Amino acid sequence: MSLEQCEITSSTDVSAITKPPTTLSWGGLHQGVVEKRKFLTALASHVPNNFTFRTIHTPDGALTRLYFLGIPQKSRENTLLYVDIPKYDPAREATPILNWRTLFEAFQPTTSSAQLSKEEQLLRERKRLGIFGITSYDIVENEGKFIFPACNNMYVCLDNDIQNQEAVLPMPINTSCSGARMDAKICPHRSSLLAFIHCNDIWVTNLWSDQECRLTFAHKGLSLLASDPLSAGVPSFVVQEEFDRYTGYWWEPVQSDGQRKCRILYEEVDESEVEILHIFGSSNSGETVDECRYPRAGSTNAKSTLKIVEFEYGEDGQIQDDIIERQLREPLQTFFPWMEYIVRAGWTPDARFVYAQLMNRQQTRLSLVLIPVECFIPISESNDTEMDIDPYSKSYLPLTVIYEDKSDVWINTHDILHFLPHDNDSQVKFVWASEKTGFRHLYSVTSKLQNCDTAFSAMDLIEQYEGDYASTVIEELPLTSGEWEVNGKQIWVDSDRGVVYFMGHKDTVLESHLYSVSYISPGEPVRITLPGFSHQVSFSNDFTMFVSVYSRTDQTPTSVVYDLNHSLDGVISTNSRGTLLPSIPKSTLDYHAPELFSFRSKCGFDVHTMLFKPHNYEPGIKYPTVLMVYGGPQVQQVTNSFKGIRFLRHHTLASQGYAVVVVDGRGSCTRGIQFEAHIKNRLGTVEIEDQVEGLQWLSDYTEMIDMDRVAIHGWSYGGYLSLLGLAQRPDVFKIAMAGAPVVNWKLYDTGYTERYMDVPEKNPEGYENGSVLSCVEKFPDEENRLLIIHGLIDENVHFHHTSSLINALVKACKPYRLQIYPNERHGIRSPESSEHYKTMILSFLQHNL
Amino acid sequence: MSLEQCEITSSTDVSAITKPPTTLSWGGLHQGVVEKRKFLTALASHVPNNFTFRTIHTPDGALTRLYFLGIPQKSRENTLLYVDIPKYDPAREATPILNWRTLFEAFQPTTSSAQLSKEEQLLRERKRLGIFGITSYDIVENEGKFIFPACNNMYVCLDNDIQNQEAVLPMPINTSCSGARMDAKICPHRSSLLAFIHCNDIWVTNLWSDQECRLTFAHKGLSLLASDPLSAGVPSFVVQEEFDRYTGYWWEPVQSDGQRKCRILYEEVDESEVEILHIFGSSNSGETVDECRYPRAGSTNAKSTLKIVEFEYGEDGQIQDDIIERQLREPLQTFFPWMEYIVRAGWTPDARFVYAQLMNRQQTRLSLVLIPVECFIPISESNDTEMDIDPYSKSYLPLTVIYEDKSDVWINTHDILHFLPHDNDSQVKFVWASEKTGFRHLYSVTSKLQNCDTAFSAMDLIEQYEGDYASTVIEELPLTSGEWEVNGKQIWVDSDRGVVYFMGHKDTVLESHLYSVSYISPGEPVRITLPGFSHQVSFSNDFTMFVSVYSRTDQTPTSVVYDLNHSLDGVISTNSRGTLLPSIPKSTLDYHAPELFSFRSKCGFDVHTMLFKPHNYEPGIKYPTVLMVYGGPQVQQVTNSFKGIRFLRHHTLASQGYAVVVVDGRGSCTRGIQFEAHIKNRLGTVEIEDQVEGLQWLSDYTEMIDMDRVAIHGWSYGGYLSLLGLAQRPDVFKIAMAGAPVVNWKLYDTGYTERYMDVPEKNPEGYENGSVLSCVEKFPDEENRLLIIHGLIDENVHFHHTSSLINALVKACKPYRLQIYPNERHGIRSPESSEHYKTMILSFLQHNL
Repeated sequence: MSLEQCEITSSTDVSAITKPPTTLSWGGLHQGVVEKRKFLTALASHVPNNFTFRTIHTPDGALTRLYFLGIPQKSRENTLLYVDIPKYDPAREATPILNWRTLFEAFQPTTSSAQLSKEEQLLRERKRLGIFGITSYDIVENEGKFIFPACNNMYVCLDNDIQNQEAVLPMPINTSCSGARMDAKICPHRSSLLAFIHCNDIWVTNLWSDQECRLTFAHKGLSLLASDPLSAGVPSFVVQEEFDRYTGYWWEPVQSDGQRKCRILYEEVDESEVEILHIFGSSNSGETVDECRYPRAGSTNAKSTLKIVEFEYGEDGQIQDDIIERQLREPLQTFFPWMEYIVRAGWTPDARFVYAQLMNRQQTRLSLVLIPVECFIPISESNDTEMDIDPYSKSYLPLTVIYEDKSDVWINTHDILHFLPHDNDSQVKFVWASEKTGFRHLYSVTSKLQNCDTAFSAMDLIEQYEGDYASTVIEELPLTSGEWEVNGKQIWVDSDRGVVYFMGHKDTVLESHLYSVSYISPGEPVRITLPGFSHQVSFSNDFTMFVSVYSRTDQTPTSVVYDLNHSLDGVISTNSRGTLLPSIPKSTLDYHAPELFSFRSKCGFDVHTMLFKPHNYEPGIKYPTVLMVYGGPQVQQVTNSFKGIRFLRHHTLASQGYAVVVVDGRGSCTRGIQFEAHIKNRLGTVEIEDQVEGLQWLSDYTEMIDMDRVAIHGWSYGGYLSLLGLAQRPDVFKIAMAGAPVVNWKLYDTGYTERYMDVPEKNPEGYENGSVLSCVEKFPDEENRLLIIHGLIDENVHFHHTSSLINALVKACKPYRLQIYPNERHGIRSPESSEHYKTMILSFLQHNL
Repeated sequence: MSLEQCEITSSTDVSAITKPPTTLSWGGLHQGVVEKRKFLTALASHVPNNFTFRTIHTPDGALTRLYFLGIPQKSRENTLLYVDIPKYDPAREATPILNWRTLFEAFQPTTSSAQLSKEEQLLRERKRLGIFGITSYDIVENEGKFIFPACNNMYVCLDNDIQNQEAVLPMPINTSCSGARMDAKICPHRSSLLAFIHCNDIWVTNLWSDQECRLTFAHKGLSLLASDPLSAGVPSFVVQEEFDRYTGYWWEPVQSDGQRKCRILYEEVDESEVEILHIFGSSNSGETVDECRYPRAGSTNAKSTLKIVEFEYGEDGQIQDDIIERQLREPLQTFFPWMEYIVRAGWTPDARFVYAQLMNRQQTRLSLVLIPVECFIPISESNDTEMDIDPYSKSYLPLTVIYEDKSDVWINTHDILHFLPHDNDSQVKFVWASEKTGFRHLYSVTSKLQNCDTAFSAMDLIEQYEGDYASTVIEELPLTSGEWEVNGKQIWVDSDRGVVYFMGHKDTVLESHLYSVSYISPGEPVRITLPGFSHQVSFSNDFTMFVSVYSRTDQTPTSVVYDLNHSLDGVISTNSRGTLLPSIPKSTLDYHAPELFSFRSKCGFDVHTMLFKPHNYEPGIKYPTVLMVYGGPQVQQVTNSFKGIRFLRHHTLASQGYAVVVVDGRGSCTRGIQFEAHIKNRLGTVEIEDQVEGLQWLSDYTEMIDMDRVAIHGWSYGGYLSLLGLAQRPDVFKIAMAGAPVVNWKLYDTGYTERYMDVPEKNPEGYENGSVLSCVEKFPDEENRLLIIHGLIDENVHFHHTSSLINALVKACKPYRLQIYPNERHGIRSPESSEHYKTMILSFLQHNL
């Protein structure tokens, strides 16, 4: 659910001490918003991302080309860029600045939001994508082949004329599909084959011949949502929104079976039992309602099954007609009656197994399961002979639970799973992460494969374990430990050296660093990246190079490419090979960095806070203050990294003479599960305490906060807390500005809400106490203290939250102010709406704080 | 579409001259609203209405009992009341005050809005019904039998124990229907039979035996709106909302055929081609969307046909099984291809004919058609023998157009049609009203019935006239004439004396009076009611008595029962027989009456205005002013009648130190069709001129208006004009408060919009110029000048009007303020919402005007 809004601005310095701030007109505020956005956009929007290293063997030797996405100077949208990494010259004193090159010339991947299909718009919502142009690509590194979506089309290109450095021309991939092709992936072992999702089914196209073939037939394409509940290859809303999985199909990684056969593992989702809600639609015509499947807390979720689709292609590469669809002999629910979500799935590297991470509804139990590919049998066979299959047959290998995690709190889904090479077919080894110690750490796990000793029948398993399989872990070697967290997004495993590289917070929770540790004989992890900054890195495939994008609060993002050197005694060192993006010298900038503070809270933890000083700060004077709040789980705002365009509102408010405060209280992430667990089953009842304590501490410490003039503002969970802040502490907060607020957890989705609150019938008090509707009487009777902001077509936190709150406010005869954005969803996206919103809150604060 | 809001208040006197008014807190404003509402409710809510005289022959002679609906003192809801009229005593000096008696004791007809079915709620919307309790009844006068709906049920009772004056006990009418029974009507010639509407079909019940029988089978009762487009006996949305016809079935008035046979004429409506829109629903659950059939301007209307259902009953009164459904041999469209609406229908008094008033889509042509009952043939017959019927057969009588009206402007539908007794079967005589002279006047019309000379076949008619029948009027005698209007709601015809009684504005457009005129030798109409007041009257059946409810701006409503005496030389005189409701003495009231003004406008007409002086008025001082606007067609606000609870907002604003101005400009009603016609095809382009001229004239004349502090406020059309006022004349209006505004005529319904604007394709400029969306750039950039208010579940002027406006305002980065009422429709109904709304606008004005 998390949401960071794009930010707000005015470049005008306004004094706001004891006298009211100079009043700017609406037009003046608007002008300031536009200018400040330009300033911060220029500072921080050209940061490269989505890196791929490619080694090219040329007559002059190996050349390393680094591809990435970014916005070139003087451009406004993302495109594919590259730099060639110069050879390392130890004699050179300064790291060379690398010159960005556009892979294409004269190609405009322009797509305005309005031109996007509804599916694409919704995916951008789930991924919180704000940029335009090329936002993703797939690459075949050895060929230099790229696939990417742009301009409501898909493109392919080859970067193979390395010497001439000539511009590459992307060619549109022809199609018979009308409508969006999404989530395209090149076949890992046959790069002429490209799979994609169209209309909730999987298709494949042969890039050489433009031959196009529909592989699955789950979705009927009917206009009536109720009649068409199946999809293939596309995760459900909840899995996308709350478990961060945006794909639902996976190419077999190697060709395991036959020369010209391809397999794709995919998830089939059945939403037939998910409630259909009606929400506002985005149409500008009279018809303004959308139907959507939306499982509210306590209601039935989508059902998922894993299937495999298999096809062959001819010598000429043409896809053959007979497509085979395979399903499990026994549904996963038979073995795991408690399973509710398939949170992750994929193949083992040898393609012998499919793996799946199964989560229970409460999200306190996770099983990592290996499923032998043989368990998937052709559907015709499984249908026709359903009654003939002997469930006691031992003719196929059973599935194995190779790891199981349980928690008294909840399990945060992560992306750490790397299968290691092994020489014993009866075992499987993998690197895995768990929060079992209270902090997410890495483990090297060895598990026994059941099938090698005894081929259990399905019924043997079901009867023996009654759905409660123990995992078969033989050895579980902690690779990291201590009161800090490993980042759950990605690791890099160099199996030649037996080393895992990971991002973590071992040095400080405020910075993200790259570390390495041996997974064979783990010692203390070694930090590789420069301290004093927060880093994001990408590796080359051979682990000889990486690129880091790093920054700190007072330094704009820098990006440097490094060699990674291992000495014989295991010491790791780096050389910088080139600078992709230099930081902007402070002397040239009128930039006011926020300051970070930490204090020991009454709750027993150190709480981190961030303060944007008013630009007109003078010691001894107190300033009106805006507490910018998120306050919900999975988010950390206070870090030692550059607070750029995403903090536009904060900077703008500071420039207008407001102190701006951010507090990461209990419930926020990266601090270990116990810190998060404080909000378990009681959302809304502890967060404001920490916000107020942080505010009060900063006020005492800095003596610059005018505690009589404090506003609270946030979106989504932050909108929820803004409402609760005003209701619970009207003595502290003069004003609340609540954006797209959750009002009643019963209206929010299963995946998020039940993780933190359980289902409504098991925690009625928690839902009652956490509902804003329960404290409507506490809202102030004064005008202009409560402002609610909501996108009318929000399909995540529906406008119904706001309308039900207003209904209650009206009944209680409480004043409220409301701004709606009729064509906006959960985040405000269009530049017009965004500028209006920013101007509006500046105006509201100017008149009322 | 018209809408008068319930009104607003605070009893606190606040000075508002050059200094800003004393600031009241929100709670203080709210308190004031509550108190002022109580004050005006006490003044004017106990006015009797819905009268029926009944003459009862008792041993002591004839007794006249007058039944009516009203709210007894100390009660809050309508019930059935009566008074017995004392004998006239010429010697008595003062008119006696009659004591109201409740027909029932210990019967609470309480129904809260929330308990009403959706059908009932929507009917209350169409009828603009605000009161609760018993709001309608049907009576069989000679029996003293009453039928009325209450408490989600229907009741019957008999008032026949006249002597004992014992309380009558209403008995619920049993039913097998779950859900609302609506629009109940007693059979005129068999009072044990009661017809009603249930689930969009006609039912009949036998009150003696509780036998219940469904007569029509148009509606299937499916949950999917799209699959169930037919209804019987219920007019379409547009006919209810824009042509004020709320019933769709009519009992045969006399038993024409057989002893125990009943016929009901009804309208079958087919909405299958009407667009289905989705709007907000009123549910408090998560599902918040309603589907509705709504024909937007230019789109397809519902189709109507007239049918007859016929049944017999046995000697015991039991309804027999074989129900016969009859339809026209040829659909009306065959004869009248231009017809779009059946605006009125019914029977001639002798039940030989059905009449229908057919209107074309442009509403410039109206045909009054008589259809011989024989033209309706059993449906089985018409279906089975469809191909066998000889369209040239002269075996049945053809229909006759007995009157046709055409207009260059539009035709305002009225309810004036009274068939007179006649002794020539080849003719028909009736009293009728037409605006052909530019003002609505009465005519006595004699038309020839075609069928008596020649029995034309259907095809003869079609071929001869090509759908363009001349009417067969022989004589058309004007009964009234001049530059004034006859009220179109009702006339009373005393055929013994050859006299028509009517309500009209002959003396002044500001007052409504009862007049009489001979329809045999019409002379100058004679005013019967007291001048200096505005009257509403009801007659006894024998025309010997009438009751008037009358008031003037400075006198609360009075109700008096009169004898009507005709002297031999034709002079009419009255004696007052009793006072039902005395006016409240002015000396006991702290009541400030508005003043009426008229001025000669630049447009060449006298324009009438009304001014509520600020209660703290002192000569020579100028006051902040609120222009309360409606400004659309069909409404007249400035009249010499008591401005009570419906003007609560006006009084409250005046009591707060605001001058409150009302202007009836061009387009408003009762002034003749040319005055209305100024807005034809150009809604939104002339109205503000007149409002501003009226305001300016009052400012010059009274010197009490502070022209720098003028707000404009209205609902519906008045919301539309509030928006246009601010956009067109931001120099005049500092603030606009627009309630439930029309924003774009393309989104409003056919029946209203096309009458004034034609269809969009024929008047694109008119729609463009009249759209608020066309002038969004003209809205001011200053904050707090534009407030939009809308009920979220408004099914008439949909919230989409407001959301599309806000979308345009956001794009243009214009500030706006919004208040929504999530459980309110086009009018604000719940007391909580109403109080919130009133408090809110007082607060908004206090802070921003």
